[in-house]
Order: sequence, then structure tokens, then C-alpha cells
Amino acid sequence: MAKYKNHKSRKTGLPPGTLVHTGDKKTEVSKVNLFSYNELVISEKNNVKIKDLVKAKFDVTTQEWINILGVHDTKLIEEIGQVFNLHPLLLEDIVSVHQRPKIDEYENCLFVVVRILYLDDNLQLQSEQVSFVLMENTLISFHENHDECFEIIRERLRKAKGRVRKMGVDYLLYALMDAIVDHYFVILDKYGEVLEHIENDLLQDADDKIINRIYKMKSNVLQLRKTVVPMRELVNNLMKGGVDEIKEITQLFMKDLYDHIIQVYDTTENYRDTLSGLMDIHLSASSNKMNRIMKVLTIISTIFIPLTFIVGVYGMNFHYMPELEWKFGYFGIWAIMLIIVGGMIYVFKNKKWL
Amino acid sequence: MAKYKNHKSRKTGLPPGTLVHTGDKKTEVSKVNLFSYNELVISEKNNVKIKDLVKAKFDVTTQEWINILGVHDTKLIEEIGQVFNLHPLLLEDIVSVHQRPKIDEYENCLFVVVRILYLDDNLQLQSEQVSFVLMENTLISFHENHDECFEIIRERLRKAKGRVRKMGVDYLLYALMDAIVDHYFVILDKYGEVLEHIENDLLQDADDKIINRIYKMKSNVLQLRKTVVPMRELVNNLMKGGVDEIKEITQLFMKDLYDHIIQVYDTTENYRDTLSGLMDIHLSASSNKMNRIMKVLTIISTIFIPLTFIVGVYGMNFHYMPELEWKFGYFGIWAIMLIIVGGMIYVFKNKKWL
Amino acid sequence: MAKYKNHKSRKTGLPPGTLVHTGDKKTEVSKVNLFSYNELVISEKNNVKIKDLVKAKFDVTTQEWINILGVHDTKLIEEIGQVFNLHPLLLEDIVSVHQRPKIDEYENCLFVVVRILYLDDNLQLQSEQVSFVLMENTLISFHENHDECFEIIRERLRKAKGRVRKMGVDYLLYALMDAIVDHYFVILDKYGEVLEHIENDLLQDADDKIINRIYKMKSNVLQLRKTVVPMRELVNNLMKGGVDEIKEITQLFMKDLYDHIIQVYDTTENYRDTLSGLMDIHLSASSNKMNRIMKVLTIISTIFIPLTFIVGVYGMNFHYMPELEWKFGYFGIWAIMLIIVGGMIYVFKNKKWL
Amino acid sequence: MAKYKNHKSRKTGLPPGTLVHTGDKKTEVSKVNLFSYNELVISEKNNVKIKDLVKAKFDVTTQEWINILGVHDTKLIEEIGQVFNLHPLLLEDIVSVHQRPKIDEYENCLFVVVRILYLDDNLQLQSEQVSFVLMENTLISFHENHDECFEIIRERLRKAKGRVRKMGVDYLLYALMDAIVDHYFVILDKYGEVLEHIENDLLQDADDKIINRIYKMKSNVLQLRKTVVPMRELVNNLMKGGVDEIKEITQLFMKDLYDHIIQVYDTTENYRDTLSGLMDIHLSASSNKMNRIMKVLTIISTIFIPLTFIVGVYGMNFHYMPELEWKFGYFGIWAIMLIIVGGMIYVFKNKKWL
Amino acid sequence: MAKYKNHKSRKTGLPPGTLVHTGDKKTEVSKVNLFSYNELVISEKNNVKIKDLVKAKFDVTTQEWINILGVHDTKLIEEIGQVFNLHPLLLEDIVSVHQRPKIDEYENCLFVVVRILYLDDNLQLQSEQVSFVLMENTLISFHENHDECFEIIRERLRKAKGRVRKMGVDYLLYALMDAIVDHYFVILDKYGEVLEHIENDLLQDADDKIINRIYKMKSNVLQLRKTVVPMRELVNNLMKGGVDEIKEITQLFMKDLYDHIIQVYDTTENYRDTLSGLMDIHLSASSNKMNRIMKVLTIISTIFIPLTFIVGVYGMNFHYMPELEWKFGYFGIWAIMLIIVGGMIYVFKNKKWL
Repeated sequence: MAKYKNHKSRKTGLPPGTLVHTGDKKTEVSKVNLFSYNELVISEKNNVKIKDLVKAKFDVTTQEWINILGVHDTKLIEEIGQVFNLHPLLLEDIVSVHQRPKIDEYENCLFVVVRILYLDDNLQLQSEQVSFVLMENTLISFHENHDECFEIIRERLRKAKGRVRKMGVDYLLYALMDAIVDHYFVILDKYGEVLEHIENDLLQDADDKIINRIYKMKSNVLQLRKTVVPMRELVNNLMKGGVDEIKEITQLFMKDLYDHIIQVYDTTENYRDTLSGLMDIHLSASSNKMNRIMKVLTIISTIFIPLTFIVGVYGMNFHYMPELEWKFGYFGIWAIMLIIVGGMIYVFKNKKWL
Repeated sequence: MAKYKNHKSRKTGLPPGTLVHTGDKKTEVSKVNLFSYNELVISEKNNVKIKDLVKAKFDVTTQEWINILGVHDTKLIEEIGQVFNLHPLLLEDIVSVHQRPKIDEYENCLFVVVRILYLDDNLQLQSEQVSFVLMENTLISFHENHDECFEIIRERLRKAKGRVRKMGVDYLLYALMDAIVDHYFVILDKYGEVLEHIENDLLQDADDKIINRIYKMKSNVLQLRKTVVPMRELVNNLMKGGVDEIKEITQLFMKDLYDHIIQVYDTTENYRDTLSGLMDIHLSASSNKMNRIMKVLTIISTIFIPLTFIVGVYGMNFHYMPELEWKFGYFGIWAIMLIIVGGMIYVFKNKKWL
Repeated sequence: MAKYKNHKSRKTGLPPGTLVHTGDKKTEVSKVNLFSYNELVISEKNNVKIKDLVKAKFDVTTQEWINILGVHDTKLIEEIGQVFNLHPLLLEDIVSVHQRPKIDEYENCLFVVVRILYLDDNLQLQSEQVSFVLMENTLISFHENHDECFEIIRERLRKAKGRVRKMGVDYLLYALMDAIVDHYFVILDKYGEVLEHIENDLLQDADDKIINRIYKMKSNVLQLRKTVVPMRELVNNLMKGGVDEIKEITQLFMKDLYDHIIQVYDTTENYRDTLSGLMDIHLSASSNKMNRIMKVLTIISTIFIPLTFIVGVYGMNFHYMPELEWKFGYFGIWAIMLIIVGGMIYVFKNKKWL
Repeated sequence: MAKYKNHKSRKTGLPPGTLVHTGDKKTEVSKVNLFSYNELVISEKNNVKIKDLVKAKFDVTTQEWINILGVHDTKLIEEIGQVFNLHPLLLEDIVSVHQRPKIDEYENCLFVVVRILYLDDNLQLQSEQVSFVLMENTLISFHENHDECFEIIRERLRKAKGRVRKMGVDYLLYALMDAIVDHYFVILDKYGEVLEHIENDLLQDADDKIINRIYKMKSNVLQLRKTVVPMRELVNNLMKGGVDEIKEITQLFMKDLYDHIIQVYDTTENYRDTLSGLMDIHLSASSNKMNRIMKVLTIISTIFIPLTFIVGVYGMNFHYMPELEWKFGYFGIWAIMLIIVGGMIYVFKNKKWL
Repeated sequence: MAKYKNHKSRKTGLPPGTLVHTGDKKTEVSKVNLFSYNELVISEKNNVKIKDLVKAKFDVTTQEWINILGVHDTKLIEEIGQVFNLHPLLLEDIVSVHQRPKIDEYENCLFVVVRILYLDDNLQLQSEQVSFVLMENTLISFHENHDECFEIIRERLRKAKGRVRKMGVDYLLYALMDAIVDHYFVILDKYGEVLEHIENDLLQDADDKIINRIYKMKSNVLQLRKTVVPMRELVNNLMKGGVDEIKEITQLFMKDLYDHIIQVYDTTENYRDTLSGLMDIHLSASSNKMNRIMKVLTIISTIFIPLTFIVGVYGMNFHYMPELEWKFGYFGIWAIMLIIVGGMIYVFKNKKWL
């Protein structure tokens, strides 16, 4: 399992600023995608070369969104770093793909690291790092693989839908981050369903394996929380202002994003509470089951052990046992035993054991 | 169950500011209700048209309270937004009815989101979002359905009872919020009764199902807390001042409201502590029950298993067993067994098992 | 039980400032008691009329302490409010007797709400609200019933003992609050004794009912804490200064009061920790008891069940069973059984079960 | 037991500033010890009279350390208070010997209350209050009994070892406090040994009494923490500066003291975690023991109960039971029973119960 | 075991600033290693004498890194202290090798204490103190033994790889601290593997000994945390600036270091959560095992105890028992018993016990 792996250790000892990709290569060939747009025009290019980026950089009439797919290609990252004069530590962070969400302010740009979350086939939480470099007129986004949740923004750009074409690249950053956070809600809904299933199964019967399901959900929710908490902090910083690259008009939208991430956080906390509640029910159900089993054993034993003793008495071979010769001795002993059983059942009913 | 549903996901991917109602439609036809009042006069109109609102907006001699029932009607919301020049994000928040309580300050207004709480037939906590837009002379309130707790304020307005006609719309906002918070106490009282029932049942007998009742109450109290905590923060902000729309004279009342919400919060925390105490008692009671069952089993077994062994001995068919021929063998064996039983009962009494 | 009752709900829906007494009427007739004093002279009057209060108000040569017993008399409260020009919200707080301790600063006075704690006959914590209104030369105290802990201060006033006659009414406020907090220590001592009893009982034997005693103490301590925490905050505010009505010279005494309340708080927290420790011991003792019971059962069963089998073997009626005819068959079987018992006892001793 | 006793209640109702000793008298006769020293000379006097103190007070060429042993002598304390013009509340705090560590700044002096910790013969934590009054050239220390840990400082003073003679009385205060905190480490070491013993005993066998030992240690560690936490706060305040009586040069040493107290705090927290870990092990060990006992019972019962049934069958007295007459019936039944036992042992081995 | 040992107590009572080594001597002979370097040249000397250090101190054209191995040599530490004019408290901290990570600012230098972590052969966490003294052009590092993780930096210095030769000694401090923190990840990876093993073992079978493994890991993780938390604080302080010795250009790298230490912290917290999750599973698994054992016992007893009673009935020796003479009495009783067994098995299947 990879969940306890800190891929950081792979590069222990290298000088800071060395570019070593710490994740898994998931995209065969790295791609550079370029949107140049303003309110009026838009051009979209795939497989852009470095020299085209240089050209785009100096075009002040349009705003550029450069999307790099495949951060395992450290050579490409380095070239882009040279074109846009990016700090070596920033480049290192782009390819160290197990960072927690954070903002760094550099002299010439704002660097934002966030994480896309998605579920694998076993409903385990997976995440992928997305790094944003926000400059005056350019936004560069870096990630390895998952591209779908940006598609919606591309559509808006192409069709000039919404504000996205009219406002600056800082708004584009907001829009992309909003798309990512929106996707968290899909995960929350999915996990909500799983919790409901566990709860239903639990209230019906205390299965032995349910503890493992609760445990897995718990560790999923903890991992979710690990991403959401720094995200909250990050968006809070963007919202509060004081970051030059984010214009005042965009800040209002950041506040909206903050509301969303708080909602994600609240739900996550809610799930944690629910899970410990489910754990309590499980423990209680398990102990009730034990109680029921013990009750059965005790009732059976308490009824039959004395009876077995009685029939044992008359199985003894003493030469002189008067009862054995009585005419109704056998039926009398049955009568006594039935009375004992009746008395016991009465006692058990009284104690509400039956 | 809807409790794990994040209705937010329904609108994943739409641009910010798009109006999508995320709740259930509970009111057939949306209604607009308008109060125009000052210290001397008051007029109340139902089913007000948009053009009437425009007129009312420009009437500076009176203060207006516009109450919109049925936020599923996004078209209406949008029109009102145009009339009063409301920010698209604000309008979006009005129709996204699963927000946590919050305040947003916009250029031309103060936006407050609170939640009305009520209990459904199963005593489960339900909530409905109420949004307030506070402007110079106008207060607009938006909600889907529950209208009863505002009735009291309407009565005061109509009868010029209390301060409500003399003071501004900021006081009206306070009065409405106070009516909402007052309603929380009704829920607390109801839940207090449920807790008492659980406690009484628990001290009498440890029922197996009681854990589910505790769990349900716990999740209800957690949900209550989820609303109360941001409400507390919200009222605290209003109380502290620094919000232009709230006049200084009203702030004192906000402090009173803050005291109430703190009291709600304290009681909620108290209930949480009570519930974990009840859980402890339940576990302990359940384990005591087990102990009692085990004691019965052990006493019965310890008394009868040795006796059964003894009678078994004299049921053996050995040809030479001297005791069998003794005259008082049979009665002697009864005597021995009675002594054993007596000794055991003495031991059990000593150990306080009987 | 009244402990889950929020008497607030009784007045849901009334406009703020409406005087509704939310507690129980405990004093038959309300009384107004007036002390007028300075360093040299002192006069004490009972059953003072409103007009006397007006007179006293304008007498600047003396300081006044007005003590109102019986806050259920809302008419009286209202009249006093008119005489001293008190804010309606302040008056409302005086008669809403389930407030948490707090300070409110009004334009013309300082309003302090504290709680007297006392134990009822079942050692359950009860509390009563005391409200203080501190003005330039006048201190008004309002409460329903419990008057004893003020007697000590009255004595000091009459006998000019201590600083109380030389200093202002702010010092008198301190003295009264100190008398109230001093009384908390009496409760702590009483509860300390109860804890000791529980601890002793627990270390001697694990009674089934002890969990209920622990639970009751826990809920008492939690209720105590609910009063102590806001009291601490309140005194902290008075100590820090910034409140005009409290002179600098009195502040030093407030710091002393703060030390006391911190000590109360520490002890309360200590009791909480002790109680959860006792709970752990209880659970452990209860599980040890179970272990001991199981051990007895297992020892008895393990010894006698095999023996019963053996004697059962020779109780079979097969026609050809050679052992039955052996001369020493019967004694041989006894020998074998004794060897088995000896061996088992040896094994149990080895496992430290005996 | 004295641990739940709040000796404060003894003086409930007395006016503030009344000197009442709240501890136990441990020193027969109170003693006043005076060191007058500067870099060059030192004089040490025992059983100093009040008039000598007055003389010493006005001698500016030397610094004075006055050590009072026996704070039960309230008359002496009062006289010293008059000589040095100490505030009544300060004097009250000196003789109220159950204060938590704290600093109070008075106009003419700094008042510091700390606690010496030591272990009684049962390794229970005991503490004694030490109060320091720091003035321009004079340090007065007050305590009831424990004097040993100051001896080391006296030695340094006499032998002019270290900085203590060269620097002011604020450094002396530091040195004395450091000696007190150093003594905490002795307690930590002792408790560390106890924890090790408990851990070793626990890993070897789950004794029933171990829970009481864990509980006692827990309550000791909590009491230790109760002293350490305010001590940390106190030293932090001294270190941060802003206290006139502490010169800047001494502050560096206070930072060193702070490091020590933090280390004490960390170890205390560590012990708390260790103790809850030990509790978990205890519970788990106790439940494992139960499992083992149950296994033995189940194995014995499962093997012999069916066998007993079989031999019971052939003990029946039916007239027509063909097996009884078979020649090898008896040996056949033995064979069948051996096969059953073998099969069960096989099953148990499979389930890893044997 | 040394883990509860506070070596501090060894020096109780000595005046502050006395150099007493509180750790174990691990290096036979202390060594002084000197790097003098600038961008162009580098010289490396082993076993440097004190007089060479004096010379190096006054050489302003190069920067010096002095690495002292073997802090047990207090004489050497004292000589170095004299050469570089270091404060006695600083020197004391260097040889008191059980400090928690911290920064102290002295007049002429910055003093940083960090801890190298490594695992012993039993995977127990061990740590060693490293102290850094950062001056204008000189960095001195002190430690007892572990030198390997600095080797990588020495290589970079020798080969002029990376920034390390171009930038000042503050960058060198960063580089060394980064090397130390990088080594933490190795430990995290190792512990991650151990956690995986425990988890796998737990999900397969609930071994009795697993609780001890969980407990050991827990105490390891707590110890790790004890180092990581003050490290985080420390690096945070260096990052925030305000420390003269750290140039602004280096601060950016400190931020990077902070990201790493936060990642270590997060993983540590994650491990803690995982461990309590594993504990829950263990308890649940252990209780399930008990349930299964009880079920077996109950099934066997419930089936055979009634049957044994029945055969006991017909083993009685009453003279008149009609059934005994019936022709098919024996087979009839077998039929009845088989029906009973069948019925019970049916019931057990219904209850899902089989």
C-alpha cells in the first residue's frame, strides 16, 4: 500500500532546488496547452513549443493560460522556469507532488499549490497536486494527469460564458480552484452514501466485518481532512487580501470559494462525528449480542442442570431407596420436574429474560 | 435519508452567480409581502408586483420590509436583484439554501444568512435558510416556507407595539433574528424532555434499543450545534459594531441577542456532555447485566455440577461398591449433598453473590 | 426534573424589554432594604418605599446599598428602573433569572449578573441569580431568596469593620461578590468529601449503583463549571480595568477575587479528572469481577465435567464391561479421579488461577 | 485524605486582608534568617529580631536576603509587613498556603508565589508554598518548613561561588527558583521509575491491583501538572521582561529557567500519555485473560459434554437396546468416543485454540 | 530502560553555567573539523587546534564551519567558548544534551538546538542533540556522535555543488538543518512500513501480543512528535525573519524547510490517528473472538445438555416406568432426540449462529 509512503525520502540529500519528480508518471507524453484570450478574441493551441511561450509572454494585449500536463517531465518544467524566470524552489515544489496545499509569494509571481481529489475503484481517496503560478497577465497550471474538472472552464472560455473572459487571470485562478473544490462535493456525496449504508447495516445486524468498513471510512475522512484544512487556510489568505496578484474585485469571489470550502470542512467534521457514533453503536451492538448469547446459555443451563441432577439421583444403585418402589414415583418425579421448570420460566419472565 | 446529502453537488460546474435552487420546493406559488411603515403610518400589501417594489424603494418617508416566500422561484429573485442592484453572488447564496449562517458586507447592503430550526414528526431537527438583505431604509427577507415565527413581529408592527415602529430597519432585522433564536429554545426544551426520558429509562433498565435513541439524539444535538456555532460568531460580529448598517442604538439589542445565543450554545454543550454521560451509564449497565447473568449461571453450575457428579458415582455398575449396601447409604448421600449445598451458599453469601 | 428546563421559552415571542419573571417565586413578599453609609455614619432601613429611594438617590453625602429581595415582583423592579433610569433590557435581565454570569456596561451604570450556588438536601447543585447595578454612589442588588451570604457584609458595614465603610460602592460590590465566591469553596469541600466516599467505596468493592453516583457527581461538577467559567471571565474583565465604575484602588482587590475564582476553577477541573479516573477504575473493577466469576465457573466445570463423564462410563449397561468385575475397580476409579483432580489443581495453581 | 480539602473555606466570610494561616503548622518556632552581602563581604544571622530588619532595610551598601521559616506565625508576618510596608492582600497570600503559583506586581515590590514539591513516604506528591517579595535591595522569602533546597544557594553565597554575590537580589530570586525547579526533576525521575515498574509488571502479567497503581500515578501526575502549568506561565512572564524589579541581565537566566520548566512540563505530558497507554494495555490484557479463561472452559465443555451424553445413552434401562448385547459394544463405544475427541482436538488446533 | 530518565537531575544544585555533560560518551576522542571556504577556494582541516581556530576567526575573506564531534569533552567546549566569547548559559546548553529544539538569540550570535533522529536495532527512536552557533562569518556545530547526515553537505562544499559555497554561513545552517529534517522522512517511511505490518496482521488475526506492538509504536510516535513540534516552532521563527543572523535571501529557503517540517508533523499526526484506529480494531476483533468462542460453547451446551437430561431420565431405576418396556422405546427416544437436535440447528441457523 502506498498510503504510508512519504515519497519525499527518495530525494533525501539532494541540494534544494534540484528537480526530482516524486510521484508516479501517469501521462505518457507531457503536453503544453495555451489559451490566449481577452474579452474579444480567444485562441487555443495544443502542444505548444517553448518559443511560442516566449512569444505569448510578451503579448500584453491578451491574457495567457498555460496548462502543463505531465509534471514528470522535469526538463520541460525547467525550460518553462527559465522562460518565466521562476525561482528554483518553486520549480522543485511543482515536481514534488506530495505537498500540502499552500501559497508562496515570490517576487514576480504568486505560487499556489492545491490538490484535486478523486476516488479510485475501491472508493479510496486519491489526490493529485495542481500547482498554479499567477503572474501579471499569465496563469500557468501544472499537473500530472487529471484534466477533466478544468474542461468546464475551457468551455466557458471558448464560449465567452460568464465573467471569465472579461476579468483577469486572477479570476481564472479562482474559477479553476472553484472547479476543483466543487469536485470535493461529489466525493462528500459519495461518502455520505457509504455512511448511510454502514448505518443501515449496523442498525439491522452487527456484522463482524463492519468494523473494518468503519475503519476504512475513518482513514478516508482523515485523509480528506488533511487536504481540506490547509485548503481552508489557503483560501482564507487569498480572501483576506494583501496579495498583490489578486485584484479586489476577485477577492469577493474568493470569499464565496471560502464559504464552499468551509462547507466541505463542516461536512468532513460531521462525518468524523458520525463515524465515532457508529463505532459506539457497533461496540454496544456487539456487547448486546454477547449478552443475548449468554442469556440463552444461562437459561438452558439453569433449567436442565438441576433436572439432570434429579434424574441422576434416581439412577443411583443404592439397595435401599424407598422412592423407587412407590407406585407413582416415576410420574411424581416428572411432576416435580415440571413444577421446577414452570417456576424457573416464571422467574425468567419476571427478570425479562424471556 | 437526506442527512448526508450535499445538495451543492447538483450545481457543480456552473459559473459563479448562476441561480440554481438547491433545496426542495415547499411553497406552491412564491409570494412577495410588503410592509411600509414609520412611527405614524403602516401599510401592508400581499402579492406585491415588482413595479410596486420599485415605487417603494424610492419612498424615503417610510421604511420597507419586503418578505419573499418561495426562494425556488429564481426568476423572481433575479428581478428583485435587478431592482435593488444586488450582487450576483448574493443572489446565488439566497437560492443555495444549505449555507451555514454568515454575514457578508457588500457595497450597498449587509447580507445575513441565518437558519430557522424546527422539529419534524420524528423529533428530527430540520432547518430552513432565511436570508436578509439590509439596506438604508429597506430590509428584504427571503425564505422558502416557514413563516410562523415572523407572525409575532408582524403583529407588533401592525399594533405599533414595542420599539419596532420607532426604530429603523436594522432594529427590525434584530427583532426577526431574535424571533428565530427564541424558537431555538423551544427545540432545546423538547430535547431536554427527550433526554430526561432516556435518562429515566436508562436508570430503570438497560434496554438494547436505548443506544439507538442516544445515537439519534447525539446526531441531532451535533446538527443543532452546527447551526448554533456560526450563529454565535455571526451575532458576535453584529454586536461588536463596525458594520455601518447596524446603528449604535441597535447594537445594545444585538448584545442581548448574543446572550441568548450563548445560552443556546451552553445548553447544547450541556446536552452533549449529558449524552456522553448517558452512554457511559448505558455501557456500565449493560456490563452489569452481563455480570448478573454470569453470576446466575455460575451459581447454578457450581452447585449442581458437583452434585451430579456424586449421584453419577453411585449410578456406576461396579460389582463391588460397599456404600450401595449400607442401610443409610441413600440418606447419607442426601445428607452429604445438603451439606455441600449449604457450604456453597455460605461461600456465595460471603462473596456477596447472593 | 427541572435541570433540562430552559425557562426562557416561557416568554418566546414577547418584545425585548418585557419584564417576565422566568423563575420560581420563593419569597412571599418582596422587600427593599437600604443602607446609607459613609465613613462616619450609617443608617439601615427595611421595607423602604420608592419615594425614600428617590430621596436617597439625591443624597450625595452618603453611599447607598439597596438590596431587593424577591425579583418575581416585576412591578417593583419597573418602579426602581424608573427611579434610577435603568435600560429596559437591563430590567429584563434582572427578572430573567437563568442568565449566565456577565457584565454589561450601560451609559449610566455597570450591570453585573452573578450566581449564588448552594446545595439542596440531595447535595444537588442549585443556583440563584444575583444582579448588581453599580452607579456613582449607589449599588443596587437584586435576588429572589438566598440572603445569608450577604449577612456577613452587613455586619461589617454596621460595625465599620474592615475597609468597607471607608471605600466606595465599587468596593462594596467586590465585597459582596467575594462573599458569593467564598461560598463556592464550601460547595467544593462538600463535593470533595463525596468524591472521597465514592473513591473509598470503589476501592473496596465494585457496587453496581456506584456508576449512578459517579454520573450524578459528574453532572453536578459540569453544572458548577458552567457557572464558574463565565464568572472567571467576568472577574477577569473587572480586574483588567477599563471599567469606569471600578476605581483603581478596588481593582487590586478584584485581582484577589480573580485568584479565588481561578482556584475554584482549578479544583473543578481537578474533580472532573478525578471523576473520569474513578470511572476507569469502576470499569476495570467491574471487568475484574467478571473475570473472577468466570474463573470460578471454569474451575468447577473443568474439574467436574470430566469426572462426571468417567462415572457415566461405568454407569453404562453393556453386558460385557471387564472393569466392572475387577475387585478393586471401584476404588481404582476413585484413585484415577483423585489423580485427575490433583493434576488439575496443580495446573490451575501454575496458571495462578487459585 | 487531605487531597480534596480546600483549606480556603476555613476563612470564609472574613474581610480581605485578614491574616489566617490555612495550612498545617509544621515548624515549632518561626525563625528569621538574614543574609547581608555584596561582592566583597557577607554576614549571616539567625533568629533576627524585627529591629535588626529595620536596620538592614536602610543599609544600602549590602543586599539583604531575609528568609522566614514558619508562616503559621501570623503576628511575625504582620510585623514584617509593617517594616517593609507590604500590602495587606500580599500578607494574606503569604499565609494562605494553598495558592497556585503566580506573580503580582505591587507598587513597591514584586510578589512571587511558587511551590516546592516533594514526595512523602508513599510517593504521594506533597507541596509547600514559598512566597518571595522582591524589592530594590531586599529579597524576602516565606515558607513553613522545607528548607533544604535553599541550602545549596546559601553555600554559594557563603563561598562566593558563581555569580550570586556579584549580581542583585533579582538574580538571587532566580537562583532560588532554579533550585526549586531543579528539585522537580528529582520527582520526575522517581515517577519515571514507578512508571517503568508498572510497565514491566503489566507486560508480564495483568494483576487486578495494577489499575489502582495506574490511577494513583495518574492523580499524582495531574497534581504535578497543576503546579507546573502556572509555574510555566509565571516564568514566561518574568522572562519576557516588563517587570521593573528584574534587571535585563537576569532575564537571560530566567529564559534558561523557562527552558527547564518547559522540560518539566513536556515530561509531565509524556507521563500522562504513557499512563493512558498503560491503561489501554491493562484493559486489553484483562480482556485477553478473559478470552483465555473462556477458551479453556469451552474446550473442556465441548469435549466432555457430548461424551457424557453418549455414556448416558448406554446407561438407559430400556429392555430392548441391541448395542448392549454386542460383544464389542463397550470397546466400540470407547473407539467412537476417542474418534470424537480426536476430531475435536483437530478442529481446535485448526482454529488455533490449542 | 533509559526512556524515563531525565538526565538533568544529575546536575541538580550546581550554579547555572556549570558545564556538565548529561549524556553518554559515545565518541572516544573529541575532534574539531574546520572548513574555510568562499566561492573560489576551500580548505578542510581535521583535528584542528584551538590556536588555529583563533587564526580562522580573524580571517574575514573566508567563511568558517567548525564542526565539533564529542561534546562530552567539556574542557574543549570551554576553550572554544573563550575563543568565540560565548555566553556561559549557551555553553551549558551545548553539553546538556537533552534539550528540546530551541532558538536563543545572544548579543553576538544565534544559538540553535536541534535533534538528529535515528532508529536503533529494535526500531526504537533515538535522538542526538546538535547545537549550532551562528556568527557573522562562522558557524560552529556541536554534537556527540552521529555525523553521517552532514557528509552530504561536506561533499557539496568540496565540489562547490549547489548554492552552498556562494552563500553565507546562514545558508550553510539551513543546509545542515535541511539534511537533518530530510533524515526524519527516512524514519517516517520506516514507521509507515511497521504500521502497515501491524495493520495487515490485525486484519488477518487478532494476536494477543499486537497490543504491545501498537503501544510501542504509539510511544515512538509520541517521542517523534515531542521533537517535531518544537522543531516546527523553531523553523517558523527562523522563517518569519526578525533574526539578524539570517539574511533575507536565506529566509526563502527556511520557508521551504518549514514546508518539510510541516509535512513531517502532518504525517506524525496521521500515524497517531492510524494507531488509535488500529487500537479500536484490535479491541473490536478481540471482542468478536470472544463472541465466537461463546457461541461455540452455547451451541454445544444447548444441544447436549437437554439430551443428557433425557437419557438421564431413562437411566432412572424406578420400578414402574412404562416406556422402558415398550418395544420401540429405545429407538423412539433416539427419534425424539434427533428431532430436538434438528429443531435446535434450525433455530441456530435462523439466528445466524451457524
